[in-house]
Amino acid sequence: MEREDTLRRLKSIEGHVRGVSRMIEKDAYCIDVIRQVQAVQAALSKVSTKILNDHLHSCVITAIRGDDLDDRERVLKEISEVYEMASKV
Amino acid sequence: MEREDTLRRLKSIEGHVRGVSRMIEKDAYCIDVIRQVQAVQAALSKVSTKILNDHLHSCVITAIRGDDLDDRERVLKEISEVYEMASKV
Amino acid sequence: MEREDTLRRLKSIEGHVRGVSRMIEKDAYCIDVIRQVQAVQAALSKVSTKILNDHLHSCVITAIRGDDLDDRERVLKEISEVYEMASKV
Amino acid sequence: MEREDTLRRLKSIEGHVRGVSRMIEKDAYCIDVIRQVQAVQAALSKVSTKILNDHLHSCVITAIRGDDLDDRERVLKEISEVYEMASKV
Repeated sequence: MEREDTLRRLKSIEGHVRGVSRMIEKDAYCIDVIRQVQAVQAALSKVSTKILNDHLHSCVITAIRGDDLDDRERVLKEISEVYEMASKV
Repeated sequence: MEREDTLRRLKSIEGHVRGVSRMIEKDAYCIDVIRQVQAVQAALSKVSTKILNDHLHSCVITAIRGDDLDDRERVLKEISEVYEMASKV
Repeated sequence: MEREDTLRRLKSIEGHVRGVSRMIEKDAYCIDVIRQVQAVQAALSKVSTKILNDHLHSCVITAIRGDDLDDRERVLKEISEVYEMASKV
Repeated sequence: MEREDTLRRLKSIEGHVRGVSRMIEKDAYCIDVIRQVQAVQAALSKVSTKILNDHLHSCVITAIRGDDLDDRERVLKEISEVYEMASKV
């Protein structure tokens, strides 16, 4: 269900990107195009937050409650990494 | 030419988004999916910088060298606005 | 006046950063600290948008209305560069 | 030790902000000022990633390995929230 919602959002984002291409083909005003590109980026941020949330409630709980310390360390490190990257993109 | 390059990049971004959907359908590891979403966002930042650059070299020069003070004010305000938005998405 | 306002904001940001240090010294909850760090970043985005806006209304107008093509190219390139960087930080 | 390192970074960021004020007082070139503001923001992103990392390795492990389901849900929700915010600032 979560997955279906994410796929639906990605489908809509794909259409949004195609819409940006059409705007450029029709010589739309640059600033309007940039605003649409920024809207796509914001929509992607929501998708990525949703995926992270699912991940926290599944793999992360399993790894942290499990006994494999390397695995636990790995999932925590990955969260820090995507967080750091999120601050940049 | 600039325009062709931008359209090509958007086409590739569209394919990249479709690739993210396929990863989810195939139950790819969440963190790998998030990294691809962030890569799409970075690619969109490049597209939007390119479009801004074209805009600066065309409309902005025309408006600033022109005599319509309202028009000049408008283009400058738009640049501040997309810059502010860029700091947020 | 614009300048005074910017200096006042920076003074307040400096105090905000000091406040974050104090939170850490008093063992405040990590998530609360992170939220304050993010608030400082948002305040800095506002300052940088304001400075860009002043720049557009002074140096950029002068350079674009002037006859030195290299100078004009330089100011436009700088705007693209800080815009690109803004999308990343 | 981690804490000392974070406090040291914040001290340096505070000095960096003060340096930006001085640049403005001395009428430094706007673009150079903006670049320094962006550098401060990047330094804050590093601090906030470090704090999140410490948090993951302490409170988050404790909450997830503990039996209080509300508490566990709370810490996971907080991570999603700061991640979402990080994508915006």
